[in-house]
Amino acid sequence: MSSDLRQLPIGVFDSGIGGLTVLKALVARLPGEDFLYLGDTARLPYGTKTSATVERYALQAVAELVRRGVKAVVVACNTASAAALPALAAAHPALPVIGVIEPGAAAAVAATRTGRIAVIATEGTVRGGAYQRAIHALRGNAEVSATPATLFVALAEEGWTRGEVALATARRYLEPLFSHDQSAPDVLVLGCTHFPPLVDAIREVVGQGIQIVDSAATTASALAQLIQYRNLTHSAGSGATGFLVTDGEDRFARIGPVFFGRSIAPTDIERVDL
Amino acid sequence: MSSDLRQLPIGVFDSGIGGLTVLKALVARLPGEDFLYLGDTARLPYGTKTSATVERYALQAVAELVRRGVKAVVVACNTASAAALPALAAAHPALPVIGVIEPGAAAAVAATRTGRIAVIATEGTVRGGAYQRAIHALRGNAEVSATPATLFVALAEEGWTRGEVALATARRYLEPLFSHDQSAPDVLVLGCTHFPPLVDAIREVVGQGIQIVDSAATTASALAQLIQYRNLTHSAGSGATGFLVTDGEDRFARIGPVFFGRSIAPTDIERVDL
Repeated sequence: MSSDLRQLPIGVFDSGIGGLTVLKALVARLPGEDFLYLGDTARLPYGTKTSATVERYALQAVAELVRRGVKAVVVACNTASAAALPALAAAHPALPVIGVIEPGAAAAVAATRTGRIAVIATEGTVRGGAYQRAIHALRGNAEVSATPATLFVALAEEGWTRGEVALATARRYLEPLFSHDQSAPDVLVLGCTHFPPLVDAIREVVGQGIQIVDSAATTASALAQLIQYRNLTHSAGSGATGFLVTDGEDRFARIGPVFFGRSIAPTDIERVDL
Repeated sequence: MSSDLRQLPIGVFDSGIGGLTVLKALVARLPGEDFLYLGDTARLPYGTKTSATVERYALQAVAELVRRGVKAVVVACNTASAAALPALAAAHPALPVIGVIEPGAAAAVAATRTGRIAVIATEGTVRGGAYQRAIHALRGNAEVSATPATLFVALAEEGWTRGEVALATARRYLEPLFSHDQSAPDVLVLGCTHFPPLVDAIREVVGQGIQIVDSAATTASALAQLIQYRNLTHSAGSGATGFLVTDGEDRFARIGPVFFGRSIAPTDIERVDL
């Protein structure tokens, strides 16, 4: 493995802006690496599109990252992870590619005591059943429910992560899942990268007894292991993060910090056509 | 003008599903005409995209309608009307094309007594200032405020048009606009085709003293005049409506009735790639 390859950034692909919650965890876990984030903001949201369309978009996005040079790719979008990982592996057999579903499932299985796990995600992720399969692969007797919570995406994009609307929305989605004391889940998986900014409203509805997990931290650990195994680790990078978006650089710079947890310089954002 | 041309359907283009509120009014006003609706469901929402991208998408969509044969086109999406009408007229000089902004502005000016008009719309429509310009062209001394109400789009798409979340959202967007008795607007324009299904929640917040107008009925009247003037009226059509979508036929059939006000047969929906 040449040192040139090690010095390449890690590509991070998302439908838009939600994947910045994953990038935040990646940067924290791997401070010596450089990152190149691609958000397909022109075509978001992916969550209400069919799998075939999401797969096509993901192939275009990862081809662009590969063209620019990356040593690995994180698909930081649950919908795209569910729809496109096999096609991405087939198109780029030498490239390490990981998604966020398996790491999220691993976090859920590690956290549950009762084996009853609730997943909230986009329509597309729920319909595909990827979380249910990934959890059952790790714990065959788990009881998994998966529920679409589409409106959380729009709430996070609007920056309305607290207050009356966020709470009323959380109640409408979550109270039916946690209303039965005996059979209620003890773990709630935030199966969409847009959901972590809403965790306070979600916590207020589900109460303190429920473990809330998301994919970000476990995906970062999985990536660290993967690039170490492939001898691709680079600890002397500048920690630089570049951003590619397919539309709306201004909006990305304005709303991105809700998800990334720090400011994004407009000069670090480049517009691309896929 | 050949009778062949008169017998062609009227094309209706929207970013997805919201334009069905306009189609509903067109079908009611022109029962003898046939319609061909194209919803760009793969790339919705347009409201958060830049004008240049929306213009490009609109040109592709109308080219597809023209290829299939239409005698006129209604751009039944405020965002696309604001961004793309000049480009569409340039690309198709012989084709009658109308949008929904001018008819919506005309409805607002006809309804106001005080000249104070509030417009709620998508980010893209507000940013472009098209409503403000269209209203001022009709009444130069009107006081127009325009406010983005992005989350209403997601609420209508989720079918949550009544209840606690819709009300809380309406309060958050609208109470600041109508809280000053002396200078409050007397007309509220629903400047996005996704908003009419939410009219009950909106009405509960703004009260009975405010006139709520949208573009649907006035756009239908404008279209009727336009095709009569161009000698394109056809009163013996079957009233058939065909639907083209760029993704998610099942979802379109399921959620479309919220906007169209009647059921949509899956066999009337065809998938197209733009």
